[in-house]
Amino acid sequence: MINVRPGDLHAFAARCLSAVGVSDGDAATVADVLLAADLRGIDSHGCARLRRYVDGVRAGRIDAGARPTVVADAPAAAVIDAGNGLGQPAAVAAIDLAIAKASATGVGAVTVRRSNHFGIAGFYAERASRRGFGAFVTTNASPQVAPTHGVEAMFGTNPVAFSFPTDDERPFVFDAATSVVPRGRLERLSREGRARPEPGWVVGGDGDLAELVSRLKARDGVALLPLGGAGETSGGHKGYGLALVAELLCGPLAGASWGRHVYGPGAADLGQFFLCLDIDRFRPRDEFALEARRMFDELRASRPADRNRPVLIPGDREHDAAAQRRHAIPLRPAVWDDLSRIADDCGVALPAPLDRAVAGG
Amino acid sequence: MINVRPGDLHAFAARCLSAVGVSDGDAATVADVLLAADLRGIDSHGCARLRRYVDGVRAGRIDAGARPTVVADAPAAAVIDAGNGLGQPAAVAAIDLAIAKASATGVGAVTVRRSNHFGIAGFYAERASRRGFGAFVTTNASPQVAPTHGVEAMFGTNPVAFSFPTDDERPFVFDAATSVVPRGRLERLSREGRARPEPGWVVGGDGDLAELVSRLKARDGVALLPLGGAGETSGGHKGYGLALVAELLCGPLAGASWGRHVYGPGAADLGQFFLCLDIDRFRPRDEFALEARRMFDELRASRPADRNRPVLIPGDREHDAAAQRRHAIPLRPAVWDDLSRIADDCGVALPAPLDRAVAGG
Repeated sequence: MINVRPGDLHAFAARCLSAVGVSDGDAATVADVLLAADLRGIDSHGCARLRRYVDGVRAGRIDAGARPTVVADAPAAAVIDAGNGLGQPAAVAAIDLAIAKASATGVGAVTVRRSNHFGIAGFYAERASRRGFGAFVTTNASPQVAPTHGVEAMFGTNPVAFSFPTDDERPFVFDAATSVVPRGRLERLSREGRARPEPGWVVGGDGDLAELVSRLKARDGVALLPLGGAGETSGGHKGYGLALVAELLCGPLAGASWGRHVYGPGAADLGQFFLCLDIDRFRPRDEFALEARRMFDELRASRPADRNRPVLIPGDREHDAAAQRRHAIPLRPAVWDDLSRIADDCGVALPAPLDRAVAGG
Repeated sequence: MINVRPGDLHAFAARCLSAVGVSDGDAATVADVLLAADLRGIDSHGCARLRRYVDGVRAGRIDAGARPTVVADAPAAAVIDAGNGLGQPAAVAAIDLAIAKASATGVGAVTVRRSNHFGIAGFYAERASRRGFGAFVTTNASPQVAPTHGVEAMFGTNPVAFSFPTDDERPFVFDAATSVVPRGRLERLSREGRARPEPGWVVGGDGDLAELVSRLKARDGVALLPLGGAGETSGGHKGYGLALVAELLCGPLAGASWGRHVYGPGAADLGQFFLCLDIDRFRPRDEFALEARRMFDELRASRPADRNRPVLIPGDREHDAAAQRRHAIPLRPAVWDDLSRIADDCGVALPAPLDRAVAGG
């Protein structure tokens, strides 16, 4: 692993994006979201994705000059057209507008159309909860998941993020793909030497994991399964239903593309959905936070199946990763090499790797 | 099976409730929700539950005289205190208020506190979607589900229902417990002679299903597992996270009880959450419905794993059941016997059973 200071990595990502024509403000926003993923240990959505955005802008697939525009506006609802710009600035505009509407009316819902990949959904939900709001954020994504009883990749891993403020500085954030596993996790496990998937992770093959991952990427007869797995015995129809709800919110409701049609020849045309609740309109926020704290405490204190593996609260793992990584983000050699090539291409200096000793790695 | 006309069963349920002191309007509302479940084939939430409400009112655990009261009100948000009355009238008041707020502002969110069991969540979501709104409804419930890595029943099966209007008279309704299976399904399978649960359905035992069900009811070391099953391999932490979000909305946010504290010695104090979206504020409703239709058509036409088992859309099965049951609801002998006893207790005539030939059963 190559260890890099978070601040240095952030500055590097922002400079590379600026070098290809992204405004400094938007470049900083994209870097914020990438670093948030790297800090939380969600490596698949961190700087390993910088290539996607840099190349997308350079190839003209993403319009770096686009400005998110409000195209419909009601007291508690709005629609933003991202104009095929970067997903992150449009998403920040959307969650901030949802916050403003929730402040005014109690609730705010904002959809985004003609958008691009926006990184981790939890980033935007957490942004709202740091300001005291409950939030729900979802996006559609490239088609990789089969419907229950089906074998074709018909919709994305459609993550859902829900968050709430708490009585400390760290909001409750639950952020999960609606598939059993996201493709990024299969890629990581394959890299780490795992030979085969668990039953119920994918449909269309149960052999060599590396081969399944490449067939999944190529849409060659392999698809991920919705949460609950194959068929209905373990509730696969529930994961399918949740993914479909996300797709309906982000596609038909937002007026964006959906299902197999996203990432078409013209543009990604992803859609996103942002909802904020003003906790105080329902209950004094400190009472809410106190009750939530009691709930979390009872769950943590509940008896575990294995004494060495306590019951967690969603977000605990990401919080621990962020504490561990606050001085140094570990990057795989393949990611480091890719960042080196981006640095060359963009004429930006690579961040200085840290000593292993300094990084604590 | 004893077959009964839906209208006769509805009238019977309403009369029994009126006989124990429920107002005619509230009795009709409860009967509406019970019949909706029976029609959809969700027998666990149909007239098999009449006993719960009749006995609850008679024993004073449910206050038949309570009126749902709006105790906090904002342009897009409100809080209803159900006053320990029946859950169904409070829920109808809540969804109708959420619809009104969504009509005015684009979105409406209403919580209910001090409530009771409200039947199927999908009933209220569908009510909103029949009027052209998107809806999300959830409730907490008696503690039966263990958190990931835990073994104790810490929260309910916390169902989530999402619905959308479509281009025909039948809305899209997805309504599912956030556990792998609800207890009602285990009871049914046990009755039907199934000996053992599937792996991943429950924690605390894998032996005789009938014994597991009775231990689950007695909270004797057996708990249901969240969607995704035990541990994290199949995404159990995702089902746990969803259930916890529902619990946070219905408990701490609504100002109701939560987790192991619901159905305490005083009152159930369940909480519920209702959200409505005015589709037209985001996109003309007919465009939304057209895109949703295209999505459903593509999913139905997608290749199934088994040629004889096509890909479905959530709600298809319930729709087919309703078509089949529109003239006759089949009741199990045990349910019929229970209804007979209720009839005697309440001094209400049982509905006349239909001929097998007439019922088509």
